[in-house]
Amino acid sequence: MLGVRCLLRSVRFCSSAPFPRHKPSAKLSVRDALGAQNTSGERIKVQGWIRSVRSQKEVLFLHVNDGSSLESLQIVADSSLDSRELTFGSSVEIQGQLVKSPSKRQNVELKAEKIKIIGNCDAKAFPIKYKERHPLEYLRQYPHFRCRTNVLGSILRIRSEATAAIHSFFKDSGFVHIHTPIITSNDSEGAGELFQLEPSGKLKVPEENFFNVPAFLTVSGQLHLEVMSGAFTQVFTFGPTFRAENSQSRRHLAEFYMVEAEISFVNSLQDLMQVIEELFKATAMMVLSNCPEDVELCHKFIAPGQKDRLEHMLKNNFLIISYTEAVEILKQASQNFTFTPEWGVNLQTEHEKYLVKHCGNIPVFIINYPLAIKPFYMRDNEDGPQHTVAAVDLLVPGVGELFGGGLREERYHFLEERLARYLDLRRFGSVPHGGFGMGFERYLQCILGVDNIKDVIPFPRFPHSCLL
Amino acid sequence: MLGVRCLLRSVRFCSSAPFPRHKPSAKLSVRDALGAQNTSGERIKVQGWIRSVRSQKEVLFLHVNDGSSLESLQIVADSSLDSRELTFGSSVEIQGQLVKSPSKRQNVELKAEKIKIIGNCDAKAFPIKYKERHPLEYLRQYPHFRCRTNVLGSILRIRSEATAAIHSFFKDSGFVHIHTPIITSNDSEGAGELFQLEPSGKLKVPEENFFNVPAFLTVSGQLHLEVMSGAFTQVFTFGPTFRAENSQSRRHLAEFYMVEAEISFVNSLQDLMQVIEELFKATAMMVLSNCPEDVELCHKFIAPGQKDRLEHMLKNNFLIISYTEAVEILKQASQNFTFTPEWGVNLQTEHEKYLVKHCGNIPVFIINYPLAIKPFYMRDNEDGPQHTVAAVDLLVPGVGELFGGGLREERYHFLEERLARYLDLRRFGSVPHGGFGMGFERYLQCILGVDNIKDVIPFPRFPHSCLL
Repeated sequence: MLGVRCLLRSVRFCSSAPFPRHKPSAKLSVRDALGAQNTSGERIKVQGWIRSVRSQKEVLFLHVNDGSSLESLQIVADSSLDSRELTFGSSVEIQGQLVKSPSKRQNVELKAEKIKIIGNCDAKAFPIKYKERHPLEYLRQYPHFRCRTNVLGSILRIRSEATAAIHSFFKDSGFVHIHTPIITSNDSEGAGELFQLEPSGKLKVPEENFFNVPAFLTVSGQLHLEVMSGAFTQVFTFGPTFRAENSQSRRHLAEFYMVEAEISFVNSLQDLMQVIEELFKATAMMVLSNCPEDVELCHKFIAPGQKDRLEHMLKNNFLIISYTEAVEILKQASQNFTFTPEWGVNLQTEHEKYLVKHCGNIPVFIINYPLAIKPFYMRDNEDGPQHTVAAVDLLVPGVGELFGGGLREERYHFLEERLARYLDLRRFGSVPHGGFGMGFERYLQCILGVDNIKDVIPFPRFPHSCLL
Repeated sequence: MLGVRCLLRSVRFCSSAPFPRHKPSAKLSVRDALGAQNTSGERIKVQGWIRSVRSQKEVLFLHVNDGSSLESLQIVADSSLDSRELTFGSSVEIQGQLVKSPSKRQNVELKAEKIKIIGNCDAKAFPIKYKERHPLEYLRQYPHFRCRTNVLGSILRIRSEATAAIHSFFKDSGFVHIHTPIITSNDSEGAGELFQLEPSGKLKVPEENFFNVPAFLTVSGQLHLEVMSGAFTQVFTFGPTFRAENSQSRRHLAEFYMVEAEISFVNSLQDLMQVIEELFKATAMMVLSNCPEDVELCHKFIAPGQKDRLEHMLKNNFLIISYTEAVEILKQASQNFTFTPEWGVNLQTEHEKYLVKHCGNIPVFIINYPLAIKPFYMRDNEDGPQHTVAAVDLLVPGVGELFGGGLREERYHFLEERLARYLDLRRFGSVPHGGFGMGFERYLQCILGVDNIKDVIPFPRFPHSCLL
């Protein structure tokens, strides 16, 4: 087979030389070149990195990728254009004619007229090897090169699409975007260990604070969104948050991204859950429709079976059970848990896993948690005898807790008994409101099936590691 | 006049009572209510905060705002619905009929059938006063309330629109969005003083680093974008950056947002300048078209004349002059400068101002700076006798430097002589590339004419101040 194709190619090449004079070639991205519908031999220019080289007697085949798509563009050249510098990883600029490909593997290919080496790549020294499928753990050592592999390229394009989809979702729903601050004098809700900061070199004299008060990296934009929800009825933020926790788990980072929203005048968790479910599904649909090949690569090579699991999540309504029901389900489980399920105690990872499985691997909302295990600002359900608050978490297959949120206590006298700091916000035109936060990396893990959170963020930061 | 309107109103009210039974009212945002085209008396529900109260003998007029637009919705109610709790700043839910307004001041108004007070507001204690136009300096003391004023409401809606416009611009141009890290072990380009961080409580034992190495808050995402530009030909980031500089100027913040982009395979500053000019103009056009009233408010009350100045910038091509030409212009100026202009020295603010004015108050690109005053990674122009690099700054009226960028030195042997850290990125398929950064707050200052940078960011952080 290969022999016949090569013969055909050499014949075609013979007949096309010498090349006619032509106007400057239009520069196209690989994505646009691949998507060209009616290729009648336009002269184009493509720039990118060589992903494969196949040098034959009369014909040279290259695959060039420029990051605009997973698929590379096939370059077909006369072997006279071959050079020792055309190696895996080197950067090139290629001019030629975009033609219909005789092969079924691609629609079009570029018949090269000129190949210019832009930057060499010494394949021996380059840590990414030709034709090798490197384990994700190996690639993590090279944060500056792993984006040149198929899998990280796909994940980063998906991350970019998901980011755009989240912004669109909120904009189309009438939310105002707020840049909540990264540096804050709040130590927030005690949501974990904080990073404190000072101008470099002044760390040893912390009594002289740059901001006059101790300053920390934010753990959540919630308080600042709540401020804004006193003027705009729908607000959201999407930025980095931080935890100084000494965790090496596959679900935690020291720096990660959160999508957070607050909505004023909401009276029920139902309203919040609707937004959460819509956000989850709309974002996934947008990603699936805008980069299907990238998603397919993840589902095929990283998480076999994930395609069906995601479809299952998208086509079904998410379930809702109360915390009290959840504890009952756990108590009746045949499984032996390390932590005995008990009302009034936080759910453990093993419990979350069981509940999601019990619910048929559909995301499940757990609502109405005990007052004692949720932050002071959660709205009192005034129920009894078991005292609960209007808090909600969304548990998803493979990841566990993806969203956390709830109605906020807007009633001044309820809060008065609890905390002073929060009071000022409730004195002037207080409104019932609620909100939620979603871990963006966990969302990507959830839809893609990527096991380790360090592989869905461009530059992961975690204890003992801050590469670049 | 007023008497006649009131009479008409009271007549209309008499005829409409008692109200017929009806299905639950549709909840509308104030923006959607105001934009209703054919109002045939639909029953709707609106929620928001009272911006004005005018209580007359038989009629009560309210203006309700929910942050969805600058304009408030006029509520007309029978005085029997009046209450002492209907004060400026209190939150309400109003049901009624949306009707055409007899006044020319608005298209529609809401004929209230039911007014529910949601949250009281003690006007005496509330720092924002009814009908008062508070100076921006006064409002800065109340970061949790200033969003409830017209002017900050408008600025924050514009900021949200500009954010969306920037994301759209890059997405539509085929750029991949990258979350560059906030925490970094790089001390970058020496772009100013850094914030260093450690887990809270551990500041006194900096020898035990959380990340094993000293960690800082990023001053620029450039290096990380350059990493990505080795795999994707067009990348951008839009996130917070930090300077621990002890500056109280109206142009500096300790925490501010930057839009940064890197483009691979660019060979000339012209290509970069084209993207910069398009980004500037496309974003402004989008903001002008999506929130014209908000922009008008800024241009009217904060910066008179700014409307014309902005139009002037948008309809003209930006100018380009070389650093060498700029110095010549400054030397020939009749103006006496505090700092004598001289080739090889950085331009001062007074110089930037003069140049922009000299160029007719059109944004002006300054290109080809002396090698000695730009960072090591700028591309050598190999010219002489005055040795320059392919760096570019954009100076704009009122703000000064808005963008900074340039071609990056991709040639291994040029860099080899300069710095080791950067080398690894140039060894494997190095490509000519360039990029730029834009201060987002300064951009907002530039298009809106807002004098102080602290007024275009929701929660400003600067020396001695970290409110909330």
